[in-house]
Amino acid sequence: MSAPTDPTKERSQHEDDVLERITKIVTRDNIPRGERHVGDDAAVLLPFVGEAIVSTDVAVLGVHLEASLFPLVDLGYKAVMSALSDLAAMGARPRGLVVAVTAPPGSDLESLHRGIAEAAALTNTPIVGGDLSRGTDVAVTVTVFGECPGRGAVLRRGAQEGDELLVTGPLGRAAAGLRRRRDGAPLSDELVEAHRRPWPRLNEGMAARGAHVHAMMDLSDGLGLDLHRLADASNVGFELRAIPVASGATEDEATSGGEDYELLIATNDPGRLRTMFFDRGLREPLTIGVVVADPLVRTLGGAPFIRQGFEHEF
Amino acid sequence: MSAPTDPTKERSQHEDDVLERITKIVTRDNIPRGERHVGDDAAVLLPFVGEAIVSTDVAVLGVHLEASLFPLVDLGYKAVMSALSDLAAMGARPRGLVVAVTAPPGSDLESLHRGIAEAAALTNTPIVGGDLSRGTDVAVTVTVFGECPGRGAVLRRGAQEGDELLVTGPLGRAAAGLRRRRDGAPLSDELVEAHRRPWPRLNEGMAARGAHVHAMMDLSDGLGLDLHRLADASNVGFELRAIPVASGATEDEATSGGEDYELLIATNDPGRLRTMFFDRGLREPLTIGVVVADPLVRTLGGAPFIRQGFEHEF
Repeated sequence: MSAPTDPTKERSQHEDDVLERITKIVTRDNIPRGERHVGDDAAVLLPFVGEAIVSTDVAVLGVHLEASLFPLVDLGYKAVMSALSDLAAMGARPRGLVVAVTAPPGSDLESLHRGIAEAAALTNTPIVGGDLSRGTDVAVTVTVFGECPGRGAVLRRGAQEGDELLVTGPLGRAAAGLRRRRDGAPLSDELVEAHRRPWPRLNEGMAARGAHVHAMMDLSDGLGLDLHRLADASNVGFELRAIPVASGATEDEATSGGEDYELLIATNDPGRLRTMFFDRGLREPLTIGVVVADPLVRTLGGAPFIRQGFEHEF
Repeated sequence: MSAPTDPTKERSQHEDDVLERITKIVTRDNIPRGERHVGDDAAVLLPFVGEAIVSTDVAVLGVHLEASLFPLVDLGYKAVMSALSDLAAMGARPRGLVVAVTAPPGSDLESLHRGIAEAAALTNTPIVGGDLSRGTDVAVTVTVFGECPGRGAVLRRGAQEGDELLVTGPLGRAAAGLRRRRDGAPLSDELVEAHRRPWPRLNEGMAARGAHVHAMMDLSDGLGLDLHRLADASNVGFELRAIPVASGATEDEATSGGEDYELLIATNDPGRLRTMFFDRGLREPLTIGVVVADPLVRTLGGAPFIRQGFEHEF
């Protein structure tokens, strides 16, 4: 959207110039023949195979990342990986992403876009378009889209009584990393890295879809909130045996820390899921409990499992 | 993306509650069977027909809309229409949109989303997902996606020597409306309405694609900037005869005001374009000039046509 409200101000760096430098950072060479990425009014992609999956995700400096503790490159990186995690949660294969950035004059837009480009490259997701505006916040909105060839996307609402509940890895690493960073740990600390460099479980999501799981979501806001959301959507309850706490994390971090981006899966055939993961070289998923019919039964080790995790305030 | 950096603050309105109210505003009843819109990790859409077209657009209160002159509902409305205009510019048919909003605590998120929902409903574009975060800015990022059944999308880069250049309507109405509003005109003033309530030329874009035009774009930043962009992309020049100035607008507003969202079209068969528009009940497009081979020739009435229009500063 153009902005004619302040056309008379002096301009230090013209939009087209900035866009050109950023375009160089985010554009890749191997654009499929027949596609058109950055540089036109909109991006053109070859036809999708099967259902089209779309998700949008905004990350604000100071809200989603502490500006005093982490470099700006991390904001771009995390924004992309967080958005891609939503595709993973559906079992979708990424086809591309677009990114919209706001920033105050003088911001290091190139670092921000290097983080965006790095995450996109690591997951083989082309950046096909973007937008840029002046703003008070440094904010990155990443919109991802993917496809589900063959079998359809896995929703949150399919969990059924008797399903086993699994997660793709131990929890609490990201929250523990944030705590350690606040306590002075270097950026290269293993847990700090887990906070800075989340990895979306795209391969796990596709494998789970192939294994016909009943329900799936990503743990972006913490098991203590997200599991309740899955149970609400499926109109079921659950009995958790134990939560797999990552090495170096506390029980509370594993429960409500969020940003681990592991997948939460409900399936009546965990053997098939395990085999599919094994065949594809993926780490074994961890059973955490079982789905029960009564939506009011929500327990951990027999005690009530309270809804807790990150929610924005307004 | 979740935000664990400030989990201890008191919460006046929980995210899930706010989301529920907003979801009611933006969700429509007639979701196609097999699709899944708001409420899961990502939206699920039935397969696209032909090329998939994607564009993202961010609108910031105070940058794209003067907060003292216009109600917040306008920001949501304009953000959606501006994004859809990019689909129009490709000749694409909208399939859906997602919206990411940042806002400080206490913002009237419902007004903002009513504007979003109104624009989406008027253009028959389902809102299939969204995200919401705390921020300092009120900012709306709209990502639209559409399809091009049959013939492919129309790019900026196809203009050829001898093509006629046309626009879908007289220019300068939005800029004139902003000027009039600043001078005290009511929100209901016709030109102020043109500024507040742009209409994306989706039908015109699809008709132009059907008429096999060579190049197309939308005039979001003003003819004085956008025509140069089209000429750059096509590596051509142009000779303009005259710019159609809208009633009530100045020549300067028509040239560099922006936000008119009329389409700029280059075609070697303007008769076919006119017939297609006539058949579909669309207003006749207006010829403004001709494409020439030399990229350095860029004139209006024989005089140099300077690059001018809105650009952000950074």
